[in-house]
Amino acid sequence: MTNPAIILVAPQMGENIGASARAMLNFGLSDLSIVNPRDGWPNERADAMSSGALDKMPPVQVFADTPAAIAPYHHIYATTARPRDMVKPVLTAAEAAADIRRRQAEGQKTAILFGGERAGLSNDDVALAQTIITVPTNPDFSSINLGQGVMLVAYEWFQAGDVTAAQAKDLPATQEELNEFIARLEAELDSGGFFRSADMKPTTLRNIRSMLSRSDLTEQEVKTWHGIVSALIGKRKHA
Amino acid sequence: MTNPAIILVAPQMGENIGASARAMLNFGLSDLSIVNPRDGWPNERADAMSSGALDKMPPVQVFADTPAAIAPYHHIYATTARPRDMVKPVLTAAEAAADIRRRQAEGQKTAILFGGERAGLSNDDVALAQTIITVPTNPDFSSINLGQGVMLVAYEWFQAGDVTAAQAKDLPATQEELNEFIARLEAELDSGGFFRSADMKPTTLRNIRSMLSRSDLTEQEVKTWHGIVSALIGKRKHA
Repeated sequence: MTNPAIILVAPQMGENIGASARAMLNFGLSDLSIVNPRDGWPNERADAMSSGALDKMPPVQVFADTPAAIAPYHHIYATTARPRDMVKPVLTAAEAAADIRRRQAEGQKTAILFGGERAGLSNDDVALAQTIITVPTNPDFSSINLGQGVMLVAYEWFQAGDVTAAQAKDLPATQEELNEFIARLEAELDSGGFFRSADMKPTTLRNIRSMLSRSDLTEQEVKTWHGIVSALIGKRKHA
Repeated sequence: MTNPAIILVAPQMGENIGASARAMLNFGLSDLSIVNPRDGWPNERADAMSSGALDKMPPVQVFADTPAAIAPYHHIYATTARPRDMVKPVLTAAEAAADIRRRQAEGQKTAILFGGERAGLSNDDVALAQTIITVPTNPDFSSINLGQGVMLVAYEWFQAGDVTAAQAKDLPATQEELNEFIARLEAELDSGGFFRSADMKPTTLRNIRSMLSRSDLTEQEVKTWHGIVSALIGKRKHA
């Protein structure tokens, strides 16, 4: 199974190339190609912004034009913010992630094109792709930074395959442990004159139980509560 | 309905503040606060990287510490890459987005904390939050750029849309109300000799805060807790 490649077409700022690389590796992608980068390659600003990602990834491939860059792939996606007058399927990043995963499972090699900072992909570049990816944004402020766009697509791709194992957690206290504490608290509150009216006592106790049970206290936390009550009433005993 | 606020705690680079603002506005968020920015505020590099977003948003609010920044909100989320030894719900960005939308529909004001570039949020800052947001990433390269992290959370929030039907509920206590109670409890525990060792006191206090904040106490419930503490220590006073 080959993970999707990211292809940056005519990117301007090295910082954005580096940010793209970092975002890719954050989400498990490492195949990066660049078409005709304005400031050449390698690029010191890209290295700095990548936070080490470029050192950990296979070497970036540099191409003179988009057709050369996309040649090895079975299916090409073009990212664009503006609608284009072309009859192609348009997917959100999440939909595209599912589509990419499906193609990968079939053995297809896929690549995702991103345009430069100023104007995005040219119509000629979009025409080379089979599928368009558009991220829904605030219509009044829709232009996404290049590195951010790469991150969103990488993030959705990662999410689409993520089956993160449940995080090991402390066991909650048993109901018995919780009930023992609540019974103790009730007894101490009784002798402290907390329940002004016998009528209201059941409701008040229910509310206290509700507060305590809602937070799924662990065994250790119930012990802490016992300690708190002891400290508060202990002041009396030692007074 | 109030959209969630973004709070950057001790950010270092103006570029990342600007990238955060741009990403926020891309996805319809515009309430940005900064705690203790390294290079002060305003910041020219932030302006440049925001691509005009900072001019279109309400003025950024600057605070000297995190408690002051979070005071107005009902529910606080802390973003963190590392697991923390605290018992709090841990949500993915997508899960958090749904949770935020639900709280908004109930009239709750929410805020999301992001830590600085070097080490993220301190344990003390994480302890101030009720809920943790962790974005699943490549375990071998998990550190996300600050602006990218803000983008992912804003993106998921935007994606989650506005679908949740409002369920009328009691408002939770504000952080200010909760903090007043915790401060009082600390003082009473101190004079009750609860904190055996000064070394352990911060951890114990964090755990107590974590238990209390996890259950979204309502205003009325915080009053009940005040009553409980008064009753327990009152026994001493009347003894």
